[in-house]
Amino acid sequence: MTEHRFLQACRHEPTDVTPIWLMRQAGRYMAEYRAIRAQHSMLDVIRTPELACEITMQPINAFDLDAAIIFADILPILIGMGLNLDFVKGEGPVIDNPIRSAADVAALRTPPTEENLPYTLEAIRLVRRELDGKVPLIGFSGAPYTLASYAIEGGGSKNHTKVKSFMHAEPDAWAMLMDKLATLIGDYLVAQAEAGAQALQVFDSWAGILAPMDYREKVLPYVQTVIERAQSSGVPVIYFGTNMNGLLSMLPETGADVLGVDWRIEIDDAWDQIGEDFAVQGNLDPVTLFAPWEDIQRHADNILARTAGRAGHIFNLGHGILPETPVDHVRRLVDYVHERSAALKR
Amino acid sequence: MTEHRFLQACRHEPTDVTPIWLMRQAGRYMAEYRAIRAQHSMLDVIRTPELACEITMQPINAFDLDAAIIFADILPILIGMGLNLDFVKGEGPVIDNPIRSAADVAALRTPPTEENLPYTLEAIRLVRRELDGKVPLIGFSGAPYTLASYAIEGGGSKNHTKVKSFMHAEPDAWAMLMDKLATLIGDYLVAQAEAGAQALQVFDSWAGILAPMDYREKVLPYVQTVIERAQSSGVPVIYFGTNMNGLLSMLPETGADVLGVDWRIEIDDAWDQIGEDFAVQGNLDPVTLFAPWEDIQRHADNILARTAGRAGHIFNLGHGILPETPVDHVRRLVDYVHERSAALKR
Repeated sequence: MTEHRFLQACRHEPTDVTPIWLMRQAGRYMAEYRAIRAQHSMLDVIRTPELACEITMQPINAFDLDAAIIFADILPILIGMGLNLDFVKGEGPVIDNPIRSAADVAALRTPPTEENLPYTLEAIRLVRRELDGKVPLIGFSGAPYTLASYAIEGGGSKNHTKVKSFMHAEPDAWAMLMDKLATLIGDYLVAQAEAGAQALQVFDSWAGILAPMDYREKVLPYVQTVIERAQSSGVPVIYFGTNMNGLLSMLPETGADVLGVDWRIEIDDAWDQIGEDFAVQGNLDPVTLFAPWEDIQRHADNILARTAGRAGHIFNLGHGILPETPVDHVRRLVDYVHERSAALKR
Repeated sequence: MTEHRFLQACRHEPTDVTPIWLMRQAGRYMAEYRAIRAQHSMLDVIRTPELACEITMQPINAFDLDAAIIFADILPILIGMGLNLDFVKGEGPVIDNPIRSAADVAALRTPPTEENLPYTLEAIRLVRRELDGKVPLIGFSGAPYTLASYAIEGGGSKNHTKVKSFMHAEPDAWAMLMDKLATLIGDYLVAQAEAGAQALQVFDSWAGILAPMDYREKVLPYVQTVIERAQSSGVPVIYFGTNMNGLLSMLPETGADVLGVDWRIEIDDAWDQIGEDFAVQGNLDPVTLFAPWEDIQRHADNILARTAGRAGHIFNLGHGILPETPVDHVRRLVDYVHERSAALKR
């Protein structure tokens, strides 16, 4: 049996047509998702494997996507460490006991995944059964810097003043925090693969706010640890962050199989900086999906033309799909990427 | 008489030491500034030439900076067009009658600068008198896309869904809006030069949120118009935006004399992509100023080492200085850049 085209692309092998999935494809733009969330909180949904499974399957049933991604969130891993996470309506994630000192870091627990995030592992098992081989399932985690930023800032942050100040002023505590996070994240990713995830994405949503020197010294080593550990499970690993176009040439050092690219750069320019040996995922501007279809098509054509003839392109948005995105445009994009890339290969 | 080193660097000429100024150097991190703002609103200060002059001079009197920048804001230009701008505490700028249609664009007025922004021109004249040749004075304006985004979104915006949707769905109205803005901005910049500004910075704070294809087709032509017009006054023009590291190789097409670079890329990598013929301004992470002095020094050393031997580097932050920045670190940075770059040139 042939491997699915999404996994072939992850392994930098040629595919029949360009595979496509969309970050946050299970999300608020779908009425089916909003119906579930009207009755259940974010944390409830994540912690109830049957609901997480149902949401994961919604876009797979609605569109011709080439991969499913488990419905979960990057932050619940922090709960088991001792951080009080809540999702506050209109405010996003809030942690009311953020890390403020080396002692706070020392006190962080590192429970095994089976104890900390059993619900996501169970959801993965359910989804694999439900998918029955239709498309591969992606597991994921936040990366160490991104999780450290939430843990220290106590939520989202515009400038990351607290986390960067901590990183500089407390180098030993920073190393201990990043070590703990890398261990926990690595275990979590391996556990997801063992539960059935066939690829793993590491979201470093916030690392693009760092100067390259700080990224190299204070963050990259821990990304390397996480990715190496995840790959020990035998599945390919995707590394993704936004606003990282100033350090693309450093990203091969992460060791990831696939590098995600945001929409702020032409994908072939990014690929040239990353290097031909890697697979690349991206990079349509999520807001383009609000434009008239002709504009969406023209932007998709641009990406497909710039990746034509290269093995290892996974079509995706350059960031998560937005809540108000027209569903019909999603459907048309998915079909168009398949049709157009098939035509380009002929 | 020799020209000041800041202007020499703008013109890509060698300097005795590396010139330095800081974006938002007249701002909330200074107690003298907070004392004035405690008694006057943002719009009041901008519209009172004596206060704008006093604030402009505060960092010049406190630190050994190589340029002053007129205290003003990019948004008041919109008021004369017919948009109701207000600065709401905790929320930032708000426009309660944002552009929603082609008819709204057609109705926008384009008053002459002398009528629309006389107070900033008068402030420039006062500051030039006060500076008495000590350091050059920079005038500035927002760029067309950045102003269009505020005018259409009605304030700041995370994803720019409205402005990008308008840009795609209403191409003719978009062109008319950008034309009107480019004309008004060009006039404003020339008027500032005529009033005494010796260099002009064009802030495209938000253009880095665009895909390169959209930037090239829908934004760059108007940036070119603005910069060409500004240069007709005979002074050098700096073009700056953040998150533009994916389109650095396109930026020479703006025609700017100096290109500003944010902190998310090593400055020599950026300079190589921009090309040796241009002067470059940047690029210390503003949050680095919160770190222990040794870390600030190491990051400044990194920038100075990477620009050593190249004419046309203006040291600056990679974005505006933050409100809580320690004043003593600002003083030490300014002096250190002079001392260290002098040593590197020996």
